[in-house]
Amino acid sequence: MNIGLLGYGTIGTGVYELINLDKGKLSQNAPESVVITKILDKDLTKKVHDPVAHIVTEVDDIINDPEIDIVIALCGGMDFEYQQIKRALESGKHVVTANKAVISEYFSELTALAQANHVILRYEASVGGGIPIINGLTDALALNNIHEIKGIMNGTTNFILSKMTEEGADFDETLKLAQSIGFAEADPTADIGGYDVSRKLAILSSLAYGTLVKDEDIQKRPMSDVRAIDIEMVGQEGYVIKYLGHSILDEDQSIYTTVEPVLFNEKSIMANVNSEFNDVAIQGDVIGELQFYGKGAGKEATANAVVSDVLKIMHTLKYQLPHVVPTFDKVLAKKGTAIFKGRYYLRVSVPNDAATAEVLSFIGQLKSKKDILIEDQHLFVFTEEIHADAFDAVAEQLKNQHYDFFYARIYN
Amino acid sequence: MNIGLLGYGTIGTGVYELINLDKGKLSQNAPESVVITKILDKDLTKKVHDPVAHIVTEVDDIINDPEIDIVIALCGGMDFEYQQIKRALESGKHVVTANKAVISEYFSELTALAQANHVILRYEASVGGGIPIINGLTDALALNNIHEIKGIMNGTTNFILSKMTEEGADFDETLKLAQSIGFAEADPTADIGGYDVSRKLAILSSLAYGTLVKDEDIQKRPMSDVRAIDIEMVGQEGYVIKYLGHSILDEDQSIYTTVEPVLFNEKSIMANVNSEFNDVAIQGDVIGELQFYGKGAGKEATANAVVSDVLKIMHTLKYQLPHVVPTFDKVLAKKGTAIFKGRYYLRVSVPNDAATAEVLSFIGQLKSKKDILIEDQHLFVFTEEIHADAFDAVAEQLKNQHYDFFYARIYN
Repeated sequence: MNIGLLGYGTIGTGVYELINLDKGKLSQNAPESVVITKILDKDLTKKVHDPVAHIVTEVDDIINDPEIDIVIALCGGMDFEYQQIKRALESGKHVVTANKAVISEYFSELTALAQANHVILRYEASVGGGIPIINGLTDALALNNIHEIKGIMNGTTNFILSKMTEEGADFDETLKLAQSIGFAEADPTADIGGYDVSRKLAILSSLAYGTLVKDEDIQKRPMSDVRAIDIEMVGQEGYVIKYLGHSILDEDQSIYTTVEPVLFNEKSIMANVNSEFNDVAIQGDVIGELQFYGKGAGKEATANAVVSDVLKIMHTLKYQLPHVVPTFDKVLAKKGTAIFKGRYYLRVSVPNDAATAEVLSFIGQLKSKKDILIEDQHLFVFTEEIHADAFDAVAEQLKNQHYDFFYARIYN
Repeated sequence: MNIGLLGYGTIGTGVYELINLDKGKLSQNAPESVVITKILDKDLTKKVHDPVAHIVTEVDDIINDPEIDIVIALCGGMDFEYQQIKRALESGKHVVTANKAVISEYFSELTALAQANHVILRYEASVGGGIPIINGLTDALALNNIHEIKGIMNGTTNFILSKMTEEGADFDETLKLAQSIGFAEADPTADIGGYDVSRKLAILSSLAYGTLVKDEDIQKRPMSDVRAIDIEMVGQEGYVIKYLGHSILDEDQSIYTTVEPVLFNEKSIMANVNSEFNDVAIQGDVIGELQFYGKGAGKEATANAVVSDVLKIMHTLKYQLPHVVPTFDKVLAKKGTAIFKGRYYLRVSVPNDAATAEVLSFIGQLKSKKDILIEDQHLFVFTEEIHADAFDAVAEQLKNQHYDFFYARIYN
């Protein structure tokens, strides 16, 4: 079995080491021999000390190579990787990718294309890094209707929040630290803005609910509004801030989704998922709650998920198993965040009395008892249970008046 | 595909509902039709409103029935179930069981017997109830050497500890409460004494390390010595008591195992696994840490695991997959608890000054700095890091002198 590897960055290197250098147990468990014969990389200075694999700079050298059976697509980004995955499938090659952007955007098209070309498309590493969540979800679906998915699914933002919590540091400096040690990208928009979580939530929700949920269906709030003062204040009340993706399939056959910072009780599992670790909880109607926890990023864990997909493809081929493809034919309404409710925390920075008065008038619209504290030009509010839509409306007013503020719903 | 069901208690009823009443999604996902045709139950008064399944009182009606392809063994206990699983395999029937006692005791014999008779033996529900931990472990093993397993794997003791923590109640009354609502058996020895956890740890360790680890290889400390005063004292220091199974495959090719009460920092995942939920963590050399969390007991969750095994058997048969059997041929030393170390908590009840002096002389042997508090006829000690063996030796002296005491190692 010959593999063409697109992309030779951190994860690509890890995949190369597991396959060609056999740094795991692949050779013991693969049903036949498997090797990466070509690696696409623009950087010719990277040496591959390997008599088999060689670096190519033109993707066509891989896509048009009739000896290559599987393409592993790890370039990242959108258009180029999408085009090459599509071309590989059309050329009758199986594809493994970790690209959540491409899978979530073209999920239906690519799975149909794989089916039409009698090849297999796998993407375990696209959600939760090394966590076998797609496998776990798929297995649970054999006996269960899944009606809820909730998870900490972004290592960068979780690292930043963990670090801010540990050190009382502020957002901007912690982001810079994360960038300096390679835990955040130079352009952190996808992570900080919720797009990365949203794409992962879209993939899991599409599989679980049997309908296509797309990134743009999911309302996202960035986590960049959080300040050291927020972490301190909610910490005093026994809460920890986490960046959560959450979807619910309600009995009314509607799907509700959100990506936003939320508060967890410090004595809960989710509150204690730290740094690069991820945790995804699913709710099934027979099995109840299952959670899957592990490294959501990193070279070896993610490479493990990619090579597990390669093994599954080899297994499917050897035993001529059916190429199971997900179906997205359920008709379900997408209704935004209306179902979410809970107690809320809000902090607004109020430079003067007029601002304080205005903010108080905004939050006066909330039909809920509130604990309000005004201290050092900050106004802090904890509400009783309230619907997300009602709170979002107040947040919209604060935003329109350019206040510096942060808010989050409280879980358990 | 015809099934004979041995045992029609809580889980048996759940399995019947999933298969014959199709209360999940089995009929949508099974590769062919499947039905329970006979149920062994001594209690003929239980009615089965089903034109297909009927109750039998003689196990031979199932074992000797050539129409039955799969036997699901859910009687519990040891000898009878062991004999019937053996007979079923010898009769060329596939077997699914939730019986951790039988699997851990006869693991090697039964897997060999299944192989010799070209049938499949599955036991996902024997560890962690509804949690797909055997599946997750098996998948991880395809690429990883697993070198550590750690888990909260007993719902009864976890319920008791959670309840004691919530309500400040003592052990005896909480056990009685657990018995009255069906969360503990009339004879709770297997749960409280650590045998249940030990068997589950034996099964997982045998699979992970490729050598036979048996119940009797594992040192167990009961969790019945814990008192409300212990929970209160460690709670003040930010710790929660949990009943843990833990095994390590060390680089010296030795296996270390223990089942005992331990302390977790209240801000950790394990500390927040409550009531009937279980959590199992495995450490792989490529993937790092993975954790699997879910309901460790209960009708529907456990039935889900049993019927998942039935589905996997049907899948294996339909596509003529190899019947993968675990191997236990690695030669590894079993060295008890010597590798475990950590800070320790100890409480000894000291009725008078002579007792206090004696206990102080015992703990004076520990080569570690200690914080000691004597209050209301209790002596409390927190040590610095110390080896388990050293602490166990002191505990042995306390036991020989019939002190009422409790101790636990601290995990962070």
